[in-house]
Amino acid sequence: MIGFVAQRLPLRTVKPRTTGITMVMDKGLSVNETENFLSVASPYVDVVKLGFGSAAISPNLKPKLEVYRRYEVPVYFGGSLLEWFYAHQAVDEYIATLKEYGLTYVEVSDGTLEIPHEEKCRLITRLAKDYTVFSEVGSKDAEKIIPPYKWIELMKEELEAGSRMVIAEAREGGNVGIYRGTGEVRQGLVEEILTQIPAEKIIWEAPNKSQQVFFIKLLGPNVNLGNISYQEVIPLETLRVGLRGDTMRLFLPS
Amino acid sequence: MIGFVAQRLPLRTVKPRTTGITMVMDKGLSVNETENFLSVASPYVDVVKLGFGSAAISPNLKPKLEVYRRYEVPVYFGGSLLEWFYAHQAVDEYIATLKEYGLTYVEVSDGTLEIPHEEKCRLITRLAKDYTVFSEVGSKDAEKIIPPYKWIELMKEELEAGSRMVIAEAREGGNVGIYRGTGEVRQGLVEEILTQIPAEKIIWEAPNKSQQVFFIKLLGPNVNLGNISYQEVIPLETLRVGLRGDTMRLFLPS
Amino acid sequence: MIGFVAQRLPLRTVKPRTTGITMVMDKGLSVNETENFLSVASPYVDVVKLGFGSAAISPNLKPKLEVYRRYEVPVYFGGSLLEWFYAHQAVDEYIATLKEYGLTYVEVSDGTLEIPHEEKCRLITRLAKDYTVFSEVGSKDAEKIIPPYKWIELMKEELEAGSRMVIAEAREGGNVGIYRGTGEVRQGLVEEILTQIPAEKIIWEAPNKSQQVFFIKLLGPNVNLGNISYQEVIPLETLRVGLRGDTMRLFLPS
Repeated sequence: MIGFVAQRLPLRTVKPRTTGITMVMDKGLSVNETENFLSVASPYVDVVKLGFGSAAISPNLKPKLEVYRRYEVPVYFGGSLLEWFYAHQAVDEYIATLKEYGLTYVEVSDGTLEIPHEEKCRLITRLAKDYTVFSEVGSKDAEKIIPPYKWIELMKEELEAGSRMVIAEAREGGNVGIYRGTGEVRQGLVEEILTQIPAEKIIWEAPNKSQQVFFIKLLGPNVNLGNISYQEVIPLETLRVGLRGDTMRLFLPS
Repeated sequence: MIGFVAQRLPLRTVKPRTTGITMVMDKGLSVNETENFLSVASPYVDVVKLGFGSAAISPNLKPKLEVYRRYEVPVYFGGSLLEWFYAHQAVDEYIATLKEYGLTYVEVSDGTLEIPHEEKCRLITRLAKDYTVFSEVGSKDAEKIIPPYKWIELMKEELEAGSRMVIAEAREGGNVGIYRGTGEVRQGLVEEILTQIPAEKIIWEAPNKSQQVFFIKLLGPNVNLGNISYQEVIPLETLRVGLRGDTMRLFLPS
Repeated sequence: MIGFVAQRLPLRTVKPRTTGITMVMDKGLSVNETENFLSVASPYVDVVKLGFGSAAISPNLKPKLEVYRRYEVPVYFGGSLLEWFYAHQAVDEYIATLKEYGLTYVEVSDGTLEIPHEEKCRLITRLAKDYTVFSEVGSKDAEKIIPPYKWIELMKEELEAGSRMVIAEAREGGNVGIYRGTGEVRQGLVEEILTQIPAEKIIWEAPNKSQQVFFIKLLGPNVNLGNISYQEVIPLETLRVGLRGDTMRLFLPS
């Protein structure tokens, strides 16, 4: 079956992907859970974020990173951890930590702290010399609305500063940033961003199914999506290729 | 304790059950996760659906089916997968796939495509010769309201065509078909269906606890329920036998 | 990194904790899942509740308790199970069960049945001779509003009767008792309770993140929280110590 089906699915990029990325959020998996997860989902996992500061309090960090390494899945610490080090004026210490754990990806965010944007961009430039940088745009604060032109400006500047991709903030709950409090997509905002920033440069945080469906309908199977729960990687892949009700009609022969 | 309690619980059917069935949705478990799940829940798992088209993109399909076989739990592919083959005019290929994987159950649905009902029934009849057929009634499309008399007509025709049971659609989210968008049960619809179709012939998709409680209150511990998450099998069993607050008073000595 | 961060986090109590407790709900984990969970989260797990009556129908109860014992994590049966035995006039049998399984903690609740409060308190006193008793206050019935003075009176009487701590009911869904149907905290109720009952004597059931954040903001990192899902123990710990956006600003150097 698998061959028959695969030949008739919409074209998906393959690993190592530069577009069509699935970024998974690991909120504190054990070593065995990580192994189990990757044993089935690794072909569809491009990069893993160790959510928020969980890395700093997880007793199993080194052996878990070993598992991700064995599956050749790059890992980065949640941007909140860098913000915490920044607030403690310890960015050098943070960079030493990246070395200590052999990480090659880093996320730069300012969702929690107020970091002047030039400073954020300088940090991106500094890190981009040695690391693949993802930078996150958009506040975690539901009250703080960023107008579309500002989203575009921030994204442009961060890409110019050296970010490989920019991440559009949604939080784990999928209810801030590019979404309303209900989880509904701010469609006008998304469309306006896309007039100025190439889709392949953006990872849309999309923890909820309706959000994933929205972006697949808008941008196709190879849209970059993030903050995917480890148990939703296979279900998301079925959405991407039209093997689930919500998106099947998009990809059928006419 | 277990003996003392068991003697005082409402009577539950035992495996292989013809009623009181729990149908579980597996959205992409790894081999070890499947083993872990069945090691504790197998007495309460009657049949497993590999949700949507996940089977076609899961690299571990054969070894996973081996685990289900070892626990004597029948498995079937989500109806969406058959719809996909149908849309590709490849039903024969689908049947070859069932043989290839040694499956004995099959789900026939038309939740996503528009399949003429006589054609769906012919397919049921064809498959019922060699397989246990579950057929699903109700659209996945929230906009498409099917009136009660039509639900009854469709169910009757599919049972006559050869379905062992009919499944009342709710989707994984529990928010279409027999439910409102909020997940609330369309109680009038359910009651009207039950005036014409025997309860033991219907599997109610009921992913949410309030939905499970509704059906246990209406039809007792041995109602057939489906789309149960693998982590909710034990909690559901406590609901069925009154070992949880929501249903305890139903089954206490008076 | 871990040392650098640990030195700069707000002070957390360590095991065996008398305050800052995380009580986890296990709804039916398998032996391996329990082992996996504890392998990463055990430093942050103070006590585990086997939810509702799941213990009585789980085929793996003894070997699972063995795993919890190996990690020195005390376990108790959900209060609903004692209520069930109470309704069957079999409290002696229940106590025999605690011995049979070597449990040292017990939960006394009246969320489902109407148990006269003097009788509940007598039961607490009886059990407190041999067990650590947690007693739960608040109905599982969303319709039944208990006024603040009554919450305080019940809690006081149960602590005097011998409860080590009182648990403020929220159910697994986090939508009754100290919460509104929407999950929002009844802040006035909580504050009024705290004028009379010491915070270290209360475990707040707080299954949802916004509820956890509320209590950490109100009472600090070492608030006692309960009904935490096993997968949320690490995320909760990041909230407690300000390694997540929602609480980071509370604990930063100024």
